[in-house]
Amino acid sequence: MEGQDRETTGARAADEHHADIYGEDGAVRSSFLAQIGAAIADRDTLTLKREVDDLHQSELGDLLEALHPEQRRALVELLGSDFDFSALTEVDEAIRLDIVDNLPNAQIAQAVQELDSDDAVYILEDLDREDQEEILSRLPFTERIRLRRALDYPEETAGRRMQTEFVAVPPFWTIGQTIDYMREDKNLPDRFSQIFVIDPSFKLLGAIDLDQILRTKRAVKVEDVMHETRHAIPATMDQEEAAREFEQYDLLSAAVVDENDRLVGVLTIDDVVDVIQQEAEEDLLRMGGVGDEELSDTVLATSRSRVPWLLVNLVTAFLAASVIGLFDQTIEHIVALAVLMPIVAGMGGNAGSQTMTVTVRALATRDLDIYNAARIIRREVGVGFINGIVFAVLIGMVAGLWFHDANLGGIIAAAMIINMFAAALAGILIPLVLDRFKIDPAVASAVFVTTVTDCVGFFAFLGLATWWFSVP
Amino acid sequence: MEGQDRETTGARAADEHHADIYGEDGAVRSSFLAQIGAAIADRDTLTLKREVDDLHQSELGDLLEALHPEQRRALVELLGSDFDFSALTEVDEAIRLDIVDNLPNAQIAQAVQELDSDDAVYILEDLDREDQEEILSRLPFTERIRLRRALDYPEETAGRRMQTEFVAVPPFWTIGQTIDYMREDKNLPDRFSQIFVIDPSFKLLGAIDLDQILRTKRAVKVEDVMHETRHAIPATMDQEEAAREFEQYDLLSAAVVDENDRLVGVLTIDDVVDVIQQEAEEDLLRMGGVGDEELSDTVLATSRSRVPWLLVNLVTAFLAASVIGLFDQTIEHIVALAVLMPIVAGMGGNAGSQTMTVTVRALATRDLDIYNAARIIRREVGVGFINGIVFAVLIGMVAGLWFHDANLGGIIAAAMIINMFAAALAGILIPLVLDRFKIDPAVASAVFVTTVTDCVGFFAFLGLATWWFSVP
Repeated sequence: MEGQDRETTGARAADEHHADIYGEDGAVRSSFLAQIGAAIADRDTLTLKREVDDLHQSELGDLLEALHPEQRRALVELLGSDFDFSALTEVDEAIRLDIVDNLPNAQIAQAVQELDSDDAVYILEDLDREDQEEILSRLPFTERIRLRRALDYPEETAGRRMQTEFVAVPPFWTIGQTIDYMREDKNLPDRFSQIFVIDPSFKLLGAIDLDQILRTKRAVKVEDVMHETRHAIPATMDQEEAAREFEQYDLLSAAVVDENDRLVGVLTIDDVVDVIQQEAEEDLLRMGGVGDEELSDTVLATSRSRVPWLLVNLVTAFLAASVIGLFDQTIEHIVALAVLMPIVAGMGGNAGSQTMTVTVRALATRDLDIYNAARIIRREVGVGFINGIVFAVLIGMVAGLWFHDANLGGIIAAAMIINMFAAALAGILIPLVLDRFKIDPAVASAVFVTTVTDCVGFFAFLGLATWWFSVP
Repeated sequence: MEGQDRETTGARAADEHHADIYGEDGAVRSSFLAQIGAAIADRDTLTLKREVDDLHQSELGDLLEALHPEQRRALVELLGSDFDFSALTEVDEAIRLDIVDNLPNAQIAQAVQELDSDDAVYILEDLDREDQEEILSRLPFTERIRLRRALDYPEETAGRRMQTEFVAVPPFWTIGQTIDYMREDKNLPDRFSQIFVIDPSFKLLGAIDLDQILRTKRAVKVEDVMHETRHAIPATMDQEEAAREFEQYDLLSAAVVDENDRLVGVLTIDDVVDVIQQEAEEDLLRMGGVGDEELSDTVLATSRSRVPWLLVNLVTAFLAASVIGLFDQTIEHIVALAVLMPIVAGMGGNAGSQTMTVTVRALATRDLDIYNAARIIRREVGVGFINGIVFAVLIGMVAGLWFHDANLGGIIAAAMIINMFAAALAGILIPLVLDRFKIDPAVASAVFVTTVTDCVGFFAFLGLATWWFSVP
């Protein structure tokens, strides 16, 4: 290892497997893809099974996403019952549906039984009602009841995301009994970080973290070391709110309870991490004017999904244009106004979107609330005022020199101050008001803010010019 | 509980404590704030200690953020050694520094010893070098060594975020010995989900999850049940990359190793969740043209931090204006062009930012790579073309009717198709090229994309008009 870069050595030694599949740029290696592609073309099931066998579900998911659609379907078909269905939870919805729609329901029903219930639900929830029912009807009774219970909770709730496998013991057991039970029971969940304490009616009494069990003597009773579960999650709670509980209280897992406080499942941090990513992504995409689209969507689906946002912007663009239309005579006299007016509107738009971005994010993370709203509004208005003056001076000087007209410089400077002020107010007040009316500020703020900065920018600049130069 | 809403009942029963402090809107209750405020005014230490005692660190953090700065400092002072310093990891950097700067270094040194090492580092890393050294020098030897080691790793690396407390055992121990050791040892970390297996030189051999220990008979040897730690994190790895490992492999915790593969700490999922949030937030803020600002920053600091972005936009705004300037004679003849031109530029800007948002996000999550780049570029160009035609027809008709001029309608329609096409190309190629040159596409893409759509929009529309109407 001599002479090698220290960092690389550490990383490679610790993570050789990872390095095999992924290249330097984090994408699946082309040599690996070619090898799998060749094996698929040869229908060489043996090689495929060997290569895919020790991939983690997320690695298999990345492989599926990197393959061509025909290769992908062929791979799943060739692997047959050796295909790890949990990889389907790691790919785009469009790819997942494409794969599942190509498989007989009997095979899906078989595969779903091997999965943790949360993964099974994740795959089943996107299928149409008919297929879902047929697959469920092929499952053993208890499995069917469990999955149906989770599927009965609304989308994006804790109940939908929960795992129905968990370890629960009565309060009067000792730690020793509990450990022995876990050593004997073959039906334990794949991974767990706490066990729950329940009464005979499944009502949740408390929980014990595994490290607590390991620190405790065998003779101690469960009820003496369990902690009350302050953070039990109602099954109908929105997944985003549940994620916020996990973040706030640094939870690894939490009990999910029904309306009678009976334990029905457990929500784990890995699912919550997915929810957090998904929600952050939603906010970012919404602010950019795109909805729930995925990279694997078709051209037509993507076009269609982006039209509504462009339509809304079209209406506001005509609104801004009609403001300019009010002053067509002034522009005819002084064409320089037409040249300069997009600067006033554009700078206002940029300043407004800075304020808006901060506001939308602070609302999403609940950092902005009634206690600091007044202070933040004052701050943003102050920032708008200061930056308004800074850029008024700059733009005024450049414009005045460009067109050899000090008056024009003064007018654009004054319009800049007015528009930066309007931008600050719009950037903070519009998201706040939308949020108050329960409209997602990430979706709707941008269009309103730019409408304000365009209209105010054009009106202030052209209006001041009309008045100053006394154009009839 | 009869007659009550089912959901509310479940939530309340499960989480009574939470409901005490927070109101319906998720903000700290004003009644609770008033009560704390009154106790601070009365310097009623007893009440304060009682009220604050059973708050979770994040609840205390929220309380600190909701108080006025003077109240905040007074509360920390009144609580004295009863103040839970881990709450400082839950507040804005500006608030944390304000509180810490007001405390004597001796008190900070005392408090830091009670914290997990990752929390201690989080608080110490923002202090100036001098205070940091003085506080470290007051700590016991082992504590000092541990914190200094973490502080020596660069910012935003796994080494900075890791916890230096962990449980490690030799491979030849039995599970029984291991459990007994954990029952006896009083210096265990507060919470842990796996234990590590090391050789005498602290070289990492493997790990065992706690649930595995509980499933295994006492006589079994550690080396027979441990798994190789595929996902050990080099201490110098960027925290974002470490977070990606956690996400990909659904880890709860991971060993952090130095350049010789020696175990130096453990990274836990709760810190990773913070990193994920932080990185998603950074991307969102950068795309909105704001840097690392916090809600608690002052007006001047905020103004200053937003100026660079506005300056860059100013330059591009003048560039777009100079494109308009090329056609001032045409505008003088046909003022309608000045009225309509912002529509062409603006719609292109919106379409471009849709494509750009999707691209930037896909690059951040590594969903976009060399295997699908060509396909995604084709898709975006297709979308730009289709939506270009849709909006060309719409805008062409409205503009033609507005100014009673079919030629004008035709010209704006043609310009729209050109600009939507340019928007799609710019929206995908600019982030891809920036990413290739290791420039963060979230920061720089927006300004380049709007420059393209403004310039192309104005040039296409005014240029076509000049040519068609043969303005000299």
